[in-house]
Amino acid sequence: MEAVKGESPGRGSGAELLSGASVKALLDSVDAFLFDCDGGNPIAGVIWKGDKLIDGVPRTLEMLRSKGKKLVFVTNNSSKSRSQYADKFRSLGLSVAQDEIFSSSFAAAMYLKVNQFPPHKKVYVIGGEGILQELQLAGFTALGGPEDGEKRVQFKSSGFFEHDKNVGAVVVGIDPSINYYKLQYGTLCIRENPGCLFIATNRDSVGHMTDLQEWPGAGCMVGAICGSTEREPVVVGKPSTFMMDFLLQKYHINTSRMCMVGDRLDTDILFGQNAGCKTLLVLSGVTTQSELEDSSNRIQPDYYTGKVSDILELLGE
Amino acid sequence: MEAVKGESPGRGSGAELLSGASVKALLDSVDAFLFDCDGGNPIAGVIWKGDKLIDGVPRTLEMLRSKGKKLVFVTNNSSKSRSQYADKFRSLGLSVAQDEIFSSSFAAAMYLKVNQFPPHKKVYVIGGEGILQELQLAGFTALGGPEDGEKRVQFKSSGFFEHDKNVGAVVVGIDPSINYYKLQYGTLCIRENPGCLFIATNRDSVGHMTDLQEWPGAGCMVGAICGSTEREPVVVGKPSTFMMDFLLQKYHINTSRMCMVGDRLDTDILFGQNAGCKTLLVLSGVTTQSELEDSSNRIQPDYYTGKVSDILELLGE
Repeated sequence: MEAVKGESPGRGSGAELLSGASVKALLDSVDAFLFDCDGGNPIAGVIWKGDKLIDGVPRTLEMLRSKGKKLVFVTNNSSKSRSQYADKFRSLGLSVAQDEIFSSSFAAAMYLKVNQFPPHKKVYVIGGEGILQELQLAGFTALGGPEDGEKRVQFKSSGFFEHDKNVGAVVVGIDPSINYYKLQYGTLCIRENPGCLFIATNRDSVGHMTDLQEWPGAGCMVGAICGSTEREPVVVGKPSTFMMDFLLQKYHINTSRMCMVGDRLDTDILFGQNAGCKTLLVLSGVTTQSELEDSSNRIQPDYYTGKVSDILELLGE
Repeated sequence: MEAVKGESPGRGSGAELLSGASVKALLDSVDAFLFDCDGGNPIAGVIWKGDKLIDGVPRTLEMLRSKGKKLVFVTNNSSKSRSQYADKFRSLGLSVAQDEIFSSSFAAAMYLKVNQFPPHKKVYVIGGEGILQELQLAGFTALGGPEDGEKRVQFKSSGFFEHDKNVGAVVVGIDPSINYYKLQYGTLCIRENPGCLFIATNRDSVGHMTDLQEWPGAGCMVGAICGSTEREPVVVGKPSTFMMDFLLQKYHINTSRMCMVGDRLDTDILFGQNAGCKTLLVLSGVTTQSELEDSSNRIQPDYYTGKVSDILELLGE
């Protein structure tokens, strides 16, 4: 990783506050900007706060695109497909193309594609509609998902729970309609179908299903299947670097030419650093400047700034 | 552990086939016999096969009791209470007292008792009726269990999922009516109630809910809560040695004076050995003599015999 360390007098090494000079250096050194869309908090974020875009975001993104930068909006949300996610952006007044979105539902489908998953094999889904849609768009046959949410199991001693022997992968994401039927179906596929893959969209412990509270995340359903199968999954969402591998393969952009933009030190920034990306912390989210500068904080992004649109302001464009 | 190794010519160290002489030595050296009741297979076991008692079991148990031996029937099945388990024994023609049964549902209640869980605190249960019954018998207030099986969650952005702040422990066992409501309830208690305990009846990956198949076991539900809470549970059923600690405290029997009787090498026998018990493998279950004697097998019980009633036959009583 090509480190760009701060030079402010008195702070020694550490994050550098974005300036007119450093923003130019950053733009010259980077071909892709990866924006984290999963705020650590529903009312603080990188692109939006709650239901509102953060000021200046659309113009900033437009400028970056006009300079030929690839933009990627990254989310571990697997319940939506990219197209559903694009609708969400549009409803906020932001025009984002489907191929600028990298959701963990899409990541699961691309993982299978990149690894030449045989098209005659099927995929069983524990999770939302978004996963099914992305799998189908990629040409795969997907089973399960929301329609298995109302299925119940019968424990007759002579009964037999049938599962499809052609399932070659089980994809697990957040699933608010999780039940014993789905757990048994996924477990049987992984335990009994030879070579069956076990793919987790992500392992986030909790997420904001509602504004006021956190709810069990994909890590909950993934943990359940780990427990029943004694297997560990392949994780395709953050903090796995599958996304970077995919961008390298598809757009020939190396991680050293990517900049991860996020509002959390222990997830976004650490993830970007571990992948070998440059990192930019925005203070419009959960991290305050004093937390960043606290001596107990060991995670220093390359750059930090107040909000995404500072890129535009500092360039004077 | 006081090892009693085999002396059969040509086999070197290893398990000793139970004989008239060794059965006397075993009885003299042991004050408690722990019988595994969870067959590795529904049609092979230690005490019963399917719905039938194995020949000679009742007379053998009677003889052991008459010699003052404490008998303990050990099961990781948490869906039944000891009283429900005693009914099962009775239906098979075996009279077993409630305090001869050590189920993981009972273990959960005793863990709280031994650790002076405050009686004004409540316990949330993900699992079956057996856990609720044992908790109530031990004087605790239990919430959840089967009655939460039909509850559904609402994701209104202004809605709020309430949980009882007085819950001081969450007990998780096998739960065929697992749902997102229960997962959220247990997760909130563990994440938000200060000091809340997380207790697993056991972590068996699968179990025989029906004769023909395995189904996700308590390890599945426990894995889910591990995933959403980023916590590890206290396990009270096998292979935890909490049972031995409890027997020592209640009956003053040391593990070196206990003999674990089971039909599986990698669970029962290994568990007994790790706890410091003597071990007796019976071949009426899943393990064959050739598996026991195979050079790849590293787990050697102190003794082995065909079936439990051999103890009676060999004593000539």
